[in-house]
Amino acid sequence: VAERLVVIGGDAGGMGAASQARRLRADLDIVALERGGRTSWSACGIPYLVGGEVDHLDDLVVRSPEVFRERLDIDVRLHQEATALDLDRREVEVRDHGVGRTLRLGFDQLVLGTGARPRRPDLPGAERDCVFGVQTLDDAEALLAHARDSGHSQVVVVGGGYIGLEMAEAFTHRGAHVVVIERQPEVMGTLDPDMGALVSDAMRRNGIDVRCGTATLGFDEGVVRTEAGDVPADLVVLGLGVVPNSELAGDAGIALGAGGAVAVDDRQKTSVEGVWAAGDCCESAHLVSGVKVHVPLGTVANKQARVAGTNIAGGNARFPGVVGTAAVKLCATEVARTGLSEREAERAGIDHAAARIDGTTRAGYLPEAPSLTVKVVAERKSGRLLGAQIVGGSGSAKRIDVVATALHAGMTAGQVSWLDLAYAPPFSPTWDPVLIAARKAAEQAAQAGPGR
Amino acid sequence: VAERLVVIGGDAGGMGAASQARRLRADLDIVALERGGRTSWSACGIPYLVGGEVDHLDDLVVRSPEVFRERLDIDVRLHQEATALDLDRREVEVRDHGVGRTLRLGFDQLVLGTGARPRRPDLPGAERDCVFGVQTLDDAEALLAHARDSGHSQVVVVGGGYIGLEMAEAFTHRGAHVVVIERQPEVMGTLDPDMGALVSDAMRRNGIDVRCGTATLGFDEGVVRTEAGDVPADLVVLGLGVVPNSELAGDAGIALGAGGAVAVDDRQKTSVEGVWAAGDCCESAHLVSGVKVHVPLGTVANKQARVAGTNIAGGNARFPGVVGTAAVKLCATEVARTGLSEREAERAGIDHAAARIDGTTRAGYLPEAPSLTVKVVAERKSGRLLGAQIVGGSGSAKRIDVVATALHAGMTAGQVSWLDLAYAPPFSPTWDPVLIAARKAAEQAAQAGPGR
Repeated sequence: VAERLVVIGGDAGGMGAASQARRLRADLDIVALERGGRTSWSACGIPYLVGGEVDHLDDLVVRSPEVFRERLDIDVRLHQEATALDLDRREVEVRDHGVGRTLRLGFDQLVLGTGARPRRPDLPGAERDCVFGVQTLDDAEALLAHARDSGHSQVVVVGGGYIGLEMAEAFTHRGAHVVVIERQPEVMGTLDPDMGALVSDAMRRNGIDVRCGTATLGFDEGVVRTEAGDVPADLVVLGLGVVPNSELAGDAGIALGAGGAVAVDDRQKTSVEGVWAAGDCCESAHLVSGVKVHVPLGTVANKQARVAGTNIAGGNARFPGVVGTAAVKLCATEVARTGLSEREAERAGIDHAAARIDGTTRAGYLPEAPSLTVKVVAERKSGRLLGAQIVGGSGSAKRIDVVATALHAGMTAGQVSWLDLAYAPPFSPTWDPVLIAARKAAEQAAQAGPGR
Repeated sequence: VAERLVVIGGDAGGMGAASQARRLRADLDIVALERGGRTSWSACGIPYLVGGEVDHLDDLVVRSPEVFRERLDIDVRLHQEATALDLDRREVEVRDHGVGRTLRLGFDQLVLGTGARPRRPDLPGAERDCVFGVQTLDDAEALLAHARDSGHSQVVVVGGGYIGLEMAEAFTHRGAHVVVIERQPEVMGTLDPDMGALVSDAMRRNGIDVRCGTATLGFDEGVVRTEAGDVPADLVVLGLGVVPNSELAGDAGIALGAGGAVAVDDRQKTSVEGVWAAGDCCESAHLVSGVKVHVPLGTVANKQARVAGTNIAGGNARFPGVVGTAAVKLCATEVARTGLSEREAERAGIDHAAARIDGTTRAGYLPEAPSLTVKVVAERKSGRLLGAQIVGGSGSAKRIDVVATALHAGMTAGQVSWLDLAYAPPFSPTWDPVLIAARKAAEQAAQAGPGR
């Protein structure tokens, strides 16, 4: 009998691991369980579907079940939900929603790729039909159906994070009046407030009604209740982040870690031999802070899946970890961050300095050179680079990659300031704004600061 | 009497050093000699002036003589050319073209910022009035005057490097028929031919008549003579690179180095105590090949100038060196390179492998996601990253900065493949194409290759 790999979850984490294992080992018997009706979709693409830039839901399917079955010989089973793990017997209890039956499936190795789900606030009415989280294509389908039926002239987004921003833009594209309710003083809580304020401003310039510092109290027929009064709403989108689907693992006694996600080592192994995890359901190591974090992003999921799949096939791959890079586009404004913000450095107990500069993404003498603001954070005395945040026009966001790469390499802000980056007038001023911000952060870090 | 710093050359190298020295030392007597009539101009902006994106010549002046005089107390002397150095007496012989007089100016410290000049081929007619190099704003002024007078319906660019490409595009914008004559098999000789071919193709798609593998034989009235016959030309632009203006230094006995440029250490000091050099007239250390090179780029000039100015003021700055990063935009096509090409690795005697991949700069499901090609070169066995080349649509060129940063850090291609880069559908596929190319290069490098 062939060794059997069972994969739970049909998106990036699970199917990425299954595919990589298959590439390296033709002899494995691979079964993939997906409780929904699709595989390998791009959840990140949903706002573009809602906004009308992507025409069809199926355009967001990267690889269909048929492709996995035919090209990779992976036994994809749709509408089958893993309901329990028996680690002693090495069996998964599976509910087959298609035929309404429960069965048990043995495994030699197991991948948890159960993903995450939108965080629902513990507020009255949070389970109402008009309140949508956006994570799966089924979510997107339901949301779009409701939007068509309700007319969606009034949309309220609760939470001003990445998804909140993208969904706010998407509904603005559809002609809706969009209100974003954010409890914090500024949107984009993963930025420092001074940078988040630039994003709030950009949203307002784009006609989005942003109400920061406002707590949501509940949801009722046609209305979102907030501290600052009721806001009319045909449709509500939750942008409060996600929680890992780790109950299956936790109930079976597999160790959980950061943010309640499945704990893994750098080979993506869980606390149980032969059981692996990848993607939004599990944690990652943060290379700057040195602690485990839960970073539910597609980029991380794909990398972890590759590592897990390689190791399942007998290889020895290690996931180096994350530096906390993320980006989002809001109309013409690009937002990106990596490493630690000032706030995060403070929480981590790292004595730090920061510098913020304004610049342009092209040579200043070119017409309509987009402006941008770059903030760099560095450790005092050592000058070690800690992170950066960028908000600006076209050509801003991917500049963060220089800082992300430098964080992986453990560079100082001073070292970053001398990097030989690409220059031509349409791409950059002669001193790239990232270099200038890094230099100023290095100068700040070298000065005697407030200390701790 | 105050210590006197004399700066020769009024562009980035000289004025950058003068400005930095002034910032750090208020007491210095600083005299800057410029043989032309302007200071601190952007030579890189000339194609955009010719193409009509920049309206006025003066828009390309970053800092005027008045600003240097008034804000930085630098005694800028225009139309004064340094004709000889007397290092024993610490004097510069200066020809004042304004009043037609020669004088001698003493110095305590000296900065050579003499720049570079367009390479003129040793061919019949190369000195004709219709044959233009493009380096100074005076060059640009003369070129534009000739273009207005000649009607410039037929423009020939000799040499398909950065400047050649940009000037070809500029004249295409002006409605001219443009022919590019390139002796090598493809344009962009700093790329490998497989990548250069993509650029040649892009030029042809943009209506530029590119004739590769064709030697230019000479210039005559209204015609450029080539191996493959005569090409009509109202105006000829030289795109054959530049040669450093190092004769002044060489004649005075200052050591010359790579490409005939002034030799400097990492503090920008020449072979003579108290004499410094910065910018296109001097060499740089290449961090990947470990040898000295002549890289006449504005980014390098600005950095070297800052280092020289800091050291002149008594500081201890060091220029870490270059990794050979450069970029150019040709209509909608972006081109970038860093580190060593395969050809350069071969010449350097480094056993190497390479991988080339096609991808997109945005998520593939977004409409009109621009395509790009990324090539990564790595050292065999060690997997050390050696360089990369990118040709593609919008969002391609600045991706090279990840590789440039990784080269500074001495990373392997394998390490690059796991970098936590920024992702959102408008900015990248989940696996950034740079990561995929790096992974494939690492795989190639790990295999037993042809060896050496």
